[in-house]
Amino acid sequence: MGLSTAYSPAGSGLVPGPLGAGAGAARRRSAQVRRPRLATVRCSVDAAKQVQDGVATAVAAEAPASRKECFGVFCNIYDLKAEDKTKSWKKLVNIAVSGAAGMISNHLLFKLASGEVFGLDQPIALKLLGSERSFQALEGVAMELEDSLYPLLREVSIGIDPYEVFQDVDWALLIGAKPRGPGMERAALLDINGQIFADQGKALNAVASRNVKVLVVGNPCNTNALICLKNAPNIPAKNFHALTRLDENRAKCQLALKAGVFYDKVSNVTIWGNHSTTQVPDFLNAKIDGRPVKEVIQDTKWLEEFTMTVQKRGGALIQKWGRSSAASTAVSIVDAIKSLVTPTPEGDWFSTGVYTTGNPYGIAEDIVFSMPCRSKGDGDYELATDVSMDDFLWERIKKSEAELLAEKKCVAHLTGEGDAFCDLPEDTMLPGEK
Amino acid sequence: MGLSTAYSPAGSGLVPGPLGAGAGAARRRSAQVRRPRLATVRCSVDAAKQVQDGVATAVAAEAPASRKECFGVFCNIYDLKAEDKTKSWKKLVNIAVSGAAGMISNHLLFKLASGEVFGLDQPIALKLLGSERSFQALEGVAMELEDSLYPLLREVSIGIDPYEVFQDVDWALLIGAKPRGPGMERAALLDINGQIFADQGKALNAVASRNVKVLVVGNPCNTNALICLKNAPNIPAKNFHALTRLDENRAKCQLALKAGVFYDKVSNVTIWGNHSTTQVPDFLNAKIDGRPVKEVIQDTKWLEEFTMTVQKRGGALIQKWGRSSAASTAVSIVDAIKSLVTPTPEGDWFSTGVYTTGNPYGIAEDIVFSMPCRSKGDGDYELATDVSMDDFLWERIKKSEAELLAEKKCVAHLTGEGDAFCDLPEDTMLPGEK
Repeated sequence: MGLSTAYSPAGSGLVPGPLGAGAGAARRRSAQVRRPRLATVRCSVDAAKQVQDGVATAVAAEAPASRKECFGVFCNIYDLKAEDKTKSWKKLVNIAVSGAAGMISNHLLFKLASGEVFGLDQPIALKLLGSERSFQALEGVAMELEDSLYPLLREVSIGIDPYEVFQDVDWALLIGAKPRGPGMERAALLDINGQIFADQGKALNAVASRNVKVLVVGNPCNTNALICLKNAPNIPAKNFHALTRLDENRAKCQLALKAGVFYDKVSNVTIWGNHSTTQVPDFLNAKIDGRPVKEVIQDTKWLEEFTMTVQKRGGALIQKWGRSSAASTAVSIVDAIKSLVTPTPEGDWFSTGVYTTGNPYGIAEDIVFSMPCRSKGDGDYELATDVSMDDFLWERIKKSEAELLAEKKCVAHLTGEGDAFCDLPEDTMLPGEK
Repeated sequence: MGLSTAYSPAGSGLVPGPLGAGAGAARRRSAQVRRPRLATVRCSVDAAKQVQDGVATAVAAEAPASRKECFGVFCNIYDLKAEDKTKSWKKLVNIAVSGAAGMISNHLLFKLASGEVFGLDQPIALKLLGSERSFQALEGVAMELEDSLYPLLREVSIGIDPYEVFQDVDWALLIGAKPRGPGMERAALLDINGQIFADQGKALNAVASRNVKVLVVGNPCNTNALICLKNAPNIPAKNFHALTRLDENRAKCQLALKAGVFYDKVSNVTIWGNHSTTQVPDFLNAKIDGRPVKEVIQDTKWLEEFTMTVQKRGGALIQKWGRSSAASTAVSIVDAIKSLVTPTPEGDWFSTGVYTTGNPYGIAEDIVFSMPCRSKGDGDYELATDVSMDDFLWERIKKSEAELLAEKKCVAHLTGEGDAFCDLPEDTMLPGEK
């Protein structure tokens, strides 16, 4: 397999190259209104410099003509099928990560490269999306990935234009978002970040794999995911996810702690709704060692306060650690992906924020709502139907639904549904969430 | 298997508990001169708080008497042998990490917990050593480890007293060291950090497993490792390592880049000597696709400047990324450990800074020098003997040796070898190294 990426010197404008020059891609892109940006998909920054210095000219000269824009360790040509060690490997998977110079990505990228997520027979291409401001840091990340010598990591490219970075990607992990400044209203944040996800949705629609799986981490992630999918009508809405897995993991840990068992005994935990303080960690359906939580934990007061306990975890961590929880967020992203690419253990399920269309629970249609799902491991999922509902659970679910419907009205200008009308009841961001 | 840790409220003084109360341990410790410290080996900080709040009393009441000081997810009792999923697992491995609240550890701990390092049948106990200043951050790290739900991570404890944290550890990964302040002489740094490693050597000698493997990362790591082993006479000197694996990885990447091959084609790279600017990346013995490097890369000027290229990598990264390379350092620590616990691929070797005693190369005895090693995967190693030497290589090795001999004289007061005499030729710290 030959792997290809395009290198364009910063400031040179858009240089046609393997990543941007396919006829189909060009056609798709011409239909897009685009802000001009630096064309900056590159690999192996140091190598590019060396070429300028005349050091690596031998390598450049040896490379075939079609690849002469590209240099560096991740741009080398080789044939995985020709080697015993790699010939049984799967086809390269292309993974885009936005906010790639941030702390969550700094954990996540190395996990993706190590094989921990997609398995030890799955070669990986990482496409890192950053901003002009973060571009140097992106180069640093790419250099550290080079120095890590991960055998499965076969391509790294970096850029600031989603139309280039998202080209043919199989996964888009959308982490980058603006943090809320002091005194900023939630509506303003929805607007600023919503614009980012509208743009990225358009870019995915134009250039990504037709079956790309999109995981939105940047907050407010449910509504960002909704904006993103509305701007990508050619990609199935079912392929978009908002990350609520960190909430699920924290809920499992607290249930284990309270029950005095190890956390691997806790199953069937659902986070319902919005990734905000209206989220609903579900202890009605959750099980501990196969038994209903309410049988094992009879402390009703604790159970009623459980939602608060889970929500406060992030804030408590920030207090301790002085910054938000990048490492465990990255772990939860890994868990969210693995849940889609490995079969769900029999009887269990996982939480993910997905597009509501024909859901069996009676939750409003046309929003992104976290619900219990199962997967065969093919990247797809089905909603779990064997769930119970009671008044306490349903009331809270409706509250989170109301919030998401209000958020949706607030971003109508970004989803193509008319003028925005913003009437958000209260500030429901999780403490410290970006 | 029941796992035990001791919880002592901060400020309560030394509370006898499973970690500190064994008769043997008490005997060993009584022989040590110790500075009084807070007794702060704990697990699951939040749980401890909950107990104070009366929330988790049910759990406490269920725990057997000998464990009542201990609470939280990592303190639960269970029997790995009783479950199908875990009964074939190996015996728990105890891993101490110093500087545990720092950025390198923040990457490393999650790798250790994931099974990436020791394998998917190896349960892990992490013993995190921090300082009074970093204690809250340590709690945050422990909380993030809890929230990550790693099935193999069966115990986490945190503390600031190495005599408690190092109790019975099988591995000690010594990352914590003071960074050099502005204008600080190297000799002053050697003294300040040397004192830390003298103390930690004494603690390991007193309480660690008799076959503990010690990897020193905190710089200047070679001489710190020498100080550490000299203060731990009851632990084989062969068990101490100084990390030069990041240098080796960077050297491999640069050779691959220059040769236009993927980095998995580069083998037999040795970093000789000190982890400083006198380090010697060896391109005489290195191979690319099984062929000597000098056959593949005929650019002599490039090869002569190769050492500089490798050394400058860290500084270049700091410039790009704004901080030192925590992620790839953590990866190289993983590589260093894996090289000792998995058999070395046939014909290849790896670099690690080890104690010189009876080495076949003619390098001075009684220092810690990075050399080519092979392992059967049992945690031990043998020096590679099938290495070539030429004048260019040997001259540079002698220069690094001279530096290490000078550093050794400079810390004589810490190794029990009389008065220190400091006459370091020049500043040879790697850029940005701590």
